[in-house]
Amino acid sequence: MTDAEFEEYTAFARELALRARVETMPRFRQGLAIDNKLAQETGEAFDPVTEADREAERVIRSLIEKRYPDHGILGEEFGEKEGDGNIRWVLDPVDGTRAFICGVPSWTTLIALEVDGHQKVGVIDMPWPGEMYIGGAGGACLMTGQDKWRIAVSGEKDLSRARLSTTDPRAGECFTADEADAFMDIAGKVRVTRFGLDACAYALLAAGHLDLVIEAGLQRYDAAALVPVIEEAGGVVTDWRGQPVTGDWEKPLEEGGQRGRLVAAASRELLDSALERLGAL
Amino acid sequence: MTDAEFEEYTAFARELALRARVETMPRFRQGLAIDNKLAQETGEAFDPVTEADREAERVIRSLIEKRYPDHGILGEEFGEKEGDGNIRWVLDPVDGTRAFICGVPSWTTLIALEVDGHQKVGVIDMPWPGEMYIGGAGGACLMTGQDKWRIAVSGEKDLSRARLSTTDPRAGECFTADEADAFMDIAGKVRVTRFGLDACAYALLAAGHLDLVIEAGLQRYDAAALVPVIEEAGGVVTDWRGQPVTGDWEKPLEEGGQRGRLVAAASRELLDSALERLGAL
Repeated sequence: MTDAEFEEYTAFARELALRARVETMPRFRQGLAIDNKLAQETGEAFDPVTEADREAERVIRSLIEKRYPDHGILGEEFGEKEGDGNIRWVLDPVDGTRAFICGVPSWTTLIALEVDGHQKVGVIDMPWPGEMYIGGAGGACLMTGQDKWRIAVSGEKDLSRARLSTTDPRAGECFTADEADAFMDIAGKVRVTRFGLDACAYALLAAGHLDLVIEAGLQRYDAAALVPVIEEAGGVVTDWRGQPVTGDWEKPLEEGGQRGRLVAAASRELLDSALERLGAL
Repeated sequence: MTDAEFEEYTAFARELALRARVETMPRFRQGLAIDNKLAQETGEAFDPVTEADREAERVIRSLIEKRYPDHGILGEEFGEKEGDGNIRWVLDPVDGTRAFICGVPSWTTLIALEVDGHQKVGVIDMPWPGEMYIGGAGGACLMTGQDKWRIAVSGEKDLSRARLSTTDPRAGECFTADEADAFMDIAGKVRVTRFGLDACAYALLAAGHLDLVIEAGLQRYDAAALVPVIEEAGGVVTDWRGQPVTGDWEKPLEEGGQRGRLVAAASRELLDSALERLGAL
């Protein structure tokens, strides 16, 4: 990938995220009235978040196919389209569907570009507050409307001062019982722990507001976009053994994968403190 | 309290919330750089959320004292000022301080008016997204800038379809171990559970996006503003025994209080389903 291509793909990823807003935004916080009305008329409940997810992915895929017919595409809703080369787009049109159906504006649209399985461009878009976090050509930045700021991680090194986040700490949800115990052990040592943020947590880490995010059970499309945003902002992101999010990372342990375990940190030292407690799992 | 007074106090509560934004907003997501710089210069870390909390409460108290010198005031930062009559303002300038220090925009400013210990006016203001949820004269509404919408709860009656929220499900934080177990029991029966929202959850319930919020360990100033917003939107809010948030509600059980336990629901039926599982504690 040349520098010019890198810039072009970064700009295109931003365009895709903006176009997706047209599909997602009008369906947010609108579910209830429509739900009830349609359910009475047709006997079928309307599911606004599924609609938002599908319509946004449909639009994004069609824009990619038109512009880059050789590129591969992996999306949450419509699966994988093999490409002819080494470039693949990885999409999650609505990450945080539970937040979406509860009216919580922390849901995001995730768009990544992978080259030979390595994440090079990532966009974490938060349509409701209008904040787009971008990692790619030009580093890491936050765009709101026409304004653009460079972002950087806090650089925090000390676990006892860290601001930690995970979406759901319960065993049997994203974490297994052992994973939940390991998380709770770390949560007992940090300054403050926040829940419920989905991919938004990684954007806040890249912008210096959180220092450590630990999750498991993620899919490739949940994770790919986060990597360039965090890395370009000076952070580190690996699986629970300190290895990159590549290859079979999202597959079960018994299939040689890492079960979608992710740890993102504001410094290498903080990552190592977390890995000490997570690496054995 | 006459109708005219009710309208006047409701309008004044909105003014107070807007004025508080001047103190809170510039300190949000600004901590890091200032923190480091001041810490180097003075050896003392700057704490933006404490500053925001104190300065906002100082301003609100001074406006109340000027306009209504006879009214009582209870605030998180500067405690209680006894009034000459039966009217008291109850204030939490920054509810969700942990969210605030992690850059999460779900923190709120809470302003309530109590008459004889009963909450009559409540404002849940979310400065960052610019959403003000109001319960008082004129019912319940959401104001964003100059726009104003009536809001109403979902009316959901069925626990299995409910969208549930609590801020922190861990035993030993807000919940005791027994309380956490009771919460997890209910969480296992609902459609979806969200964490981390502080008072924002009650605003979302009033606006029909969440159906059930269960918490414990709250203070009077965390809770007073929520009551009119939820009740005017058609919801119900009580302690875990189905009693109103009055008297010694926030005190420990052994002092005749309810340990700040709160349950808010989108319908009486849903409240009763929750109380069945909580009432014995």
